[in-house]
Amino acid sequence: MHGIVLFAHGARDPEWARPFEAIRDRVRSSRPECPIALAYLEIMSPGLEEAIDAVIGEGASSITVFPLFMAQGGHLKQDLPRILDAIRAQRKHVPISLETSVGEVPELLDAISTWVLNRVD
Amino acid sequence: MHGIVLFAHGARDPEWARPFEAIRDRVRSSRPECPIALAYLEIMSPGLEEAIDAVIGEGASSITVFPLFMAQGGHLKQDLPRILDAIRAQRKHVPISLETSVGEVPELLDAISTWVLNRVD
Repeated sequence: MHGIVLFAHGARDPEWARPFEAIRDRVRSSRPECPIALAYLEIMSPGLEEAIDAVIGEGASSITVFPLFMAQGGHLKQDLPRILDAIRAQRKHVPISLETSVGEVPELLDAISTWVLNRVD
Repeated sequence: MHGIVLFAHGARDPEWARPFEAIRDRVRSSRPECPIALAYLEIMSPGLEEAIDAVIGEGASSITVFPLFMAQGGHLKQDLPRILDAIRAQRKHVPISLETSVGEVPELLDAISTWVLNRVD
């Protein structure tokens, strides 16, 4: 069974989590058999390690981490690979793959551009 | 003529800007008559005031600011309204409206969820 971890930045404001929870709920309703968890880089919890263990605990034998960041900076290019390498070293039986950020996905850039265009029409 | 300002967080890594530049280019190619500029909250430039003045300089008589943030935390709920109020006070002849963040737009949550689902299929 394949597990999904949605990885976001985190913030002090609890409302920060709302879009990520909404994405999780949408994915879960389409694929209820896939264990899915949110994870946060900082401030909010759970962190990435705890979320990965949660989806493994629900039966995931492989995992994809989706960084729900608009763009790639130091957090995704330096922090995340380091955190993920440490996690992988302790869980060699569960392959963990890493997707790109939202802003590197052409169809999502199209969707955001369409939203902007529709709002100024 | 309506102007568009795409407002992003900013980061030390110059690649951070790439998705925002891609969105700007997509919008510009569909609506070449609308002045459009990127703006950053921190680290990168231009800031919001400079970007707004740039689109006014290109002939915008009203402006919409699109916060290209995944979610709303302190930056959008406290910092941005304060910055925008100060800018508006100096430019009362140009109405400046503010859109919601990416993560508060249902069709963009759908698009992100669809991307996640397609990648785990």
